[in-house]
Amino acid sequence: MTHVIGVDLGGTKTAAGVVSPSGEVLMTETIPTLNRAGGEAILDATAALIAGLVERAADAGHSVSGVGVGSAGVIDASSGVVVSATDAISGWAGTALVDGLSSRLGLTVRAVNDVHAHALGEAWFGASAGSASSLMIAFGTGVGGSFVLDGAPVLGHRFVGGHVGHFASPLAVSDGVPLPCVCGSTGHVEAIASGPAIYEAFLRFGGSSSEALDTRGVFALAAAENHDGGASFAASRDAAVRAVDAGAAAAGQAVGGLINILDPETVVISGGLADAGGLWWKPMEAALRRELLAPLAAVPVLKASLGNSAAIIGAAKLVLL
Amino acid sequence: MTHVIGVDLGGTKTAAGVVSPSGEVLMTETIPTLNRAGGEAILDATAALIAGLVERAADAGHSVSGVGVGSAGVIDASSGVVVSATDAISGWAGTALVDGLSSRLGLTVRAVNDVHAHALGEAWFGASAGSASSLMIAFGTGVGGSFVLDGAPVLGHRFVGGHVGHFASPLAVSDGVPLPCVCGSTGHVEAIASGPAIYEAFLRFGGSSSEALDTRGVFALAAAENHDGGASFAASRDAAVRAVDAGAAAAGQAVGGLINILDPETVVISGGLADAGGLWWKPMEAALRRELLAPLAAVPVLKASLGNSAAIIGAAKLVLL
Repeated sequence: MTHVIGVDLGGTKTAAGVVSPSGEVLMTETIPTLNRAGGEAILDATAALIAGLVERAADAGHSVSGVGVGSAGVIDASSGVVVSATDAISGWAGTALVDGLSSRLGLTVRAVNDVHAHALGEAWFGASAGSASSLMIAFGTGVGGSFVLDGAPVLGHRFVGGHVGHFASPLAVSDGVPLPCVCGSTGHVEAIASGPAIYEAFLRFGGSSSEALDTRGVFALAAAENHDGGASFAASRDAAVRAVDAGAAAAGQAVGGLINILDPETVVISGGLADAGGLWWKPMEAALRRELLAPLAAVPVLKASLGNSAAIIGAAKLVLL
Repeated sequence: MTHVIGVDLGGTKTAAGVVSPSGEVLMTETIPTLNRAGGEAILDATAALIAGLVERAADAGHSVSGVGVGSAGVIDASSGVVVSATDAISGWAGTALVDGLSSRLGLTVRAVNDVHAHALGEAWFGASAGSASSLMIAFGTGVGGSFVLDGAPVLGHRFVGGHVGHFASPLAVSDGVPLPCVCGSTGHVEAIASGPAIYEAFLRFGGSSSEALDTRGVFALAAAENHDGGASFAASRDAAVRAVDAGAAAAGQAVGGLINILDPETVVISGGLADAGGLWWKPMEAALRRELLAPLAAVPVLKASLGNSAAIIGAAKLVLL
């Protein structure tokens, strides 16, 4: 059987890989995304990246039958056009992603949003492989997710489905006022549970930017053994513990509520925060399980297992579906 | 073409109707549900109800090819067994609903939870007819819902899907403490947005039970013109307005967040509160629209149109799928 190319097109870099029909990634290449050069320049660079991999695959004796792309932004999976995108990639909205790549390459191309590709990868070959339905939620710079049902992500009627960071959280509040969310609304899960939100909470709780420069620093501080760092260190360490706990509790509460609504066979948690260890995972899972209805008490909640390959593998699966 | 029987089996009454292949209800009958007599007695009574309708249909020249049931409780749609049910119907859990009816009647029988039947009815022949996907949420004694995708409700892996009342609401709080929910957890949407929750909020806000005996009374009080009823009346009227507003805002906020996640083509709001008029609907829809991501701003939010027939029609559709 022929192989396919999976592409993970993000705001800062674009990774692509040759994927076998059984989901193995044979070879990968990564380029910076030309996020200030506009849609056509990105398509040129991405097509060149893919063409190089097609050649390498041919050298190894594998023909390539198609290309699947998981891309940042809202992607119309029917027309293959980028419906909208954040400022992270200027000029990306409106780009004819599928037609642009297929005319450049002469190959079948399919595309979805990168979070849906990520979830499809985990459902096909990762943590939720073999499940009839799975809910994947990624907690990192943002909060996103995808419900994969019978082998296909539920994209939504306007391809906007999966914005699980944008519903109300009782914990996304400061002094009784809902926290602002990047979407323009307030009080959403993402405003307390994303990585940047945890850093903001750390500062709000009295942490000092001289003790932690970013979210990673907050986690290091929260995990630090107490030492004679003085009052500023102790106050910042307390703030770090509180900020991680608040973010994790909001994350778990949100996922638990979604499980009550969707009842997926398996739940997969992904993203940078899921990789941060028990400091985040334990309060997250405790909050999650507190929300669950009795018949859902045993639902498996697993850490994503494919790492950076998930979206490449899931994107490849689009062409193999 | 042959007709089918749709059954709506609830905690207090069981309604059934003869439904044409195009979704019209030709004749209906209703009996009290024998909610203290146990599963077998309920099956006997329900089978008799259905047999009577089969006979009436035959008299009118229609043959009946099958029976669809929307039942209270968690229903395993594969095995046709009642997985669990509340105390409203004692002995219902564990009942072999599908096998019990089909052996009594000699007809094909299918069953799902009544909320899923309700949503399927609206999606087939009601407010969301013609939509590729729809989210139906009912606000009444409880809060329940169903996401109908490509003509079938998403039942969930353990058939527990649709429990949209059981996720965290920032408004389900009193004096900073999350309100208890009937599910055993706290702070859920249902604890502030259901009909009984609105009555409890009325009392909590200082309303007097002598001014409103139940949720219906709270709505009447909130809609009342100011008159010289004195201080007690005025305080109770204020409490009624606040309670309705809080319930409606929590309902709208919850539905708005779910739209961001599922991106249904159409949203249908049902249940007793949806029928209560603009007093509830206006603040509900305002809160809903405040939550929406920009590409979802125009999502249609419609009132259910089938009334009490929705679950009968949706249950019938199960056999016609």
